[in-house]
Amino acid sequence: MISFVQILDFIGTFAFAISGIRLASAKRFDWFGAYIVGLATAIGGGTLRDVMLNVTPVWMTDPIYLICTAFAMFFVIIFGKYLIHLNNTFFFFDSIGLALFTVVGFGKTIALGFPFWVAIIMGSITGAAGGVIRDVFINEIPLIFRKEIYAMACVIGGLAYWGCLQLGMEDYVSQIVGGMTVLIVRILAVKYQITLPILKGDPTNQQEKE
Amino acid sequence: MISFVQILDFIGTFAFAISGIRLASAKRFDWFGAYIVGLATAIGGGTLRDVMLNVTPVWMTDPIYLICTAFAMFFVIIFGKYLIHLNNTFFFFDSIGLALFTVVGFGKTIALGFPFWVAIIMGSITGAAGGVIRDVFINEIPLIFRKEIYAMACVIGGLAYWGCLQLGMEDYVSQIVGGMTVLIVRILAVKYQITLPILKGDPTNQQEKE
Amino acid sequence: MISFVQILDFIGTFAFAISGIRLASAKRFDWFGAYIVGLATAIGGGTLRDVMLNVTPVWMTDPIYLICTAFAMFFVIIFGKYLIHLNNTFFFFDSIGLALFTVVGFGKTIALGFPFWVAIIMGSITGAAGGVIRDVFINEIPLIFRKEIYAMACVIGGLAYWGCLQLGMEDYVSQIVGGMTVLIVRILAVKYQITLPILKGDPTNQQEKE
Repeated sequence: MISFVQILDFIGTFAFAISGIRLASAKRFDWFGAYIVGLATAIGGGTLRDVMLNVTPVWMTDPIYLICTAFAMFFVIIFGKYLIHLNNTFFFFDSIGLALFTVVGFGKTIALGFPFWVAIIMGSITGAAGGVIRDVFINEIPLIFRKEIYAMACVIGGLAYWGCLQLGMEDYVSQIVGGMTVLIVRILAVKYQITLPILKGDPTNQQEKE
Repeated sequence: MISFVQILDFIGTFAFAISGIRLASAKRFDWFGAYIVGLATAIGGGTLRDVMLNVTPVWMTDPIYLICTAFAMFFVIIFGKYLIHLNNTFFFFDSIGLALFTVVGFGKTIALGFPFWVAIIMGSITGAAGGVIRDVFINEIPLIFRKEIYAMACVIGGLAYWGCLQLGMEDYVSQIVGGMTVLIVRILAVKYQITLPILKGDPTNQQEKE
Repeated sequence: MISFVQILDFIGTFAFAISGIRLASAKRFDWFGAYIVGLATAIGGGTLRDVMLNVTPVWMTDPIYLICTAFAMFFVIIFGKYLIHLNNTFFFFDSIGLALFTVVGFGKTIALGFPFWVAIIMGSITGAAGGVIRDVFINEIPLIFRKEIYAMACVIGGLAYWGCLQLGMEDYVSQIVGGMTVLIVRILAVKYQITLPILKGDPTNQQEKE
């Protein structure tokens, strides 16, 4: 079981790093910059979570995340122009990463004794905050605030996880249900182009007024 | 007394969340994105403060901030196009939030045994850093770096709070003086359009040179 | 010895703050905004490091960083238009700061019992992350991701520091070798315009695809 989760963790980290490196490449970052953006995409969410939970960020305890980002970097350098044909594969890998990271973040927060609603937020931060940091680094408005169901899949998956725990299910069953929920919501949302409504509350540019 | 402070906290959180949600709306964020920007505006400063003070961020101990941001969200969705007529009200609420958050941040830092100048900075971060995070998320230069007296009101209020403590005043009196100072400085600065000078040190674009 | 390191620390902080204040000035920030950007450039890297190491950020224990940034501010206000003639001096001061901050960050991380690769990253964050925060505040793509050898000098210096420790050298010798390595790599890179290659992996704008 451990090794299967580790494989999923590697796949998810790889896919997250690839997403950061490709966006950095499109902005003409140098190799170092692209590596850092890839790394921040992969570990940023977990680091923010761990800093708020007041535990040592997980990347500081295991070099696997640095190594995995290096693999992603070589992969983009070597196969760069063919990557566009792998978009569906990366989408699937990215969704696996999102599901796993959400479940890990949720479980870690519950294990530290926080209430379920903190765990749902921490699960979502683990899954989605890396992408926000990535978009800040490349100086774009974070994608997840405007497009597709992404972090909402983490919230729904966290609720499913919590629901299973409330029903007295085994921990590993709850994890699988929570993770599969994230995966299914994400895939269905993209397949059927389900999006959240744009907030049309206020058409004026409010920068003028604090 | 407790309940009066809680009402002020609710008003301040509501006003901060409204400011984030309205700016997100002007950038055409979806509902989820707008909620996150509102939440980050409301709790971002306090979270940054608590992470540096090495205590659990306050939003993780009480769901009121999430609930209050949800109210702000519904408020914008329902009353969106009328909000512009409430700008003066929101300005007043926002100033109350600024005053209260500054005082809370100052007091918490002093209570943890840090010197007064750390408390002044932490008070200002509690009041003003949420707006900086908001502006980074919407990909704008932070408003408080360029416009109006905002964080300076927190600094002056923190100095007043500290002065009162130095004079041997009761803690709650010092809090009221500190908070009223923030409120008055902020309101006078906007009413009489008092701004800090633009820094004209260096006209060349220094991006060229590290 | 202590006082010599303190002088270097002052020089480095001053140069980092100047770099932030000048860029803020070019964006027409007000005095307060410029001070905050200068301060964030000077202390941002160390603060991020200390938050992840779970120790109190160093600026909260000594007001020297605030005072030094205030000196930098007055310097820019008074000598603004002559600063361009001092670019070579600032480049040298900035490189000293980079070298010292890297060594301090590396040493502190090792002293807390973390492995060498965490120390190398923490040294690089201490040296280079302040500049990233500065560039996010002024709403530009971080310079270190696209231009010149900068953070790479920190990585190489960290490796040299670690190599010396592995060879059984005294701690202070290792620090000097590490710091000189950063300084030399940085100066040679700029003198001979050595840059990292641009990542050409993926020409398409990947914002379209998560």
